[in-house]
Amino acid sequence: MTTTTGDESMDLDRNGLKVLEREECLLLLATARLGRVAITSGALPVILPVNFHLVGDEILFQTAPGTKLEAATRNAVVAFEVDSMDPIEHTGWSVLVTGVARQLIDEELPEGVTEHIPRWAPGGEPRVVAISTEIVSGRRIL
Amino acid sequence: MTTTTGDESMDLDRNGLKVLEREECLLLLATARLGRVAITSGALPVILPVNFHLVGDEILFQTAPGTKLEAATRNAVVAFEVDSMDPIEHTGWSVLVTGVARQLIDEELPEGVTEHIPRWAPGGEPRVVAISTEIVSGRRIL
Repeated sequence: MTTTTGDESMDLDRNGLKVLEREECLLLLATARLGRVAITSGALPVILPVNFHLVGDEILFQTAPGTKLEAATRNAVVAFEVDSMDPIEHTGWSVLVTGVARQLIDEELPEGVTEHIPRWAPGGEPRVVAISTEIVSGRRIL
Repeated sequence: MTTTTGDESMDLDRNGLKVLEREECLLLLATARLGRVAITSGALPVILPVNFHLVGDEILFQTAPGTKLEAATRNAVVAFEVDSMDPIEHTGWSVLVTGVARQLIDEELPEGVTEHIPRWAPGGEPRVVAISTEIVSGRRIL
């Protein structure tokens, strides 16, 4: 559905939410630090919070060896979501990424990147996971 | 791993996070309004934000007919997550529920419940989805 407000044309989804373009989604991802990743662990769906950093067009976050998150982010398709909501004003946005997660080897790590991604959980020697952003979608409450 | 601080015994997970008991998880769920649900749509994982309300030991939220969320919450196992983080203080908690989602019929709806669960998205005649909380886990950053 496309509606026009003033001179601005706007796409709304079937829920009446504004559909965000890829570029706006990536800008929002670049400003956020806390996201949630959905993985499968023991055949069950799991959502875990992670601190992340958008580097180029990849989402990078740290994980510790031997954890569920580490096991489930080796070349697996995952979902990654970031949102920001104001319950009082009833405004907000959410961005969803579906992509392949893979662990970066040392040579692939952008310089200084681990300092920019505080881990949600302490402990253990960290690994850096990258999620590709081929599939990105976003919505904004009007 | 169990450590003792003062007279309080505390379980830490392998990431050094405090493991929360079921009762504390349910208390936290009762105070929160915004959660995220992980579903599978078109064989791909998806995370969507929802406003919810804990009623008894079930998580209730609204969805609109014909949406991805509505299609994916008919007797399917889903993950549901709530968190609260303070990035400055580096404190926070997260609670994860894995359970069966089902759509409630009118006779099952607790009185006045739909008024307590504002939908994240506007539009469409709402359905109420319930997620069981048999599997609940939570962590707190110390």
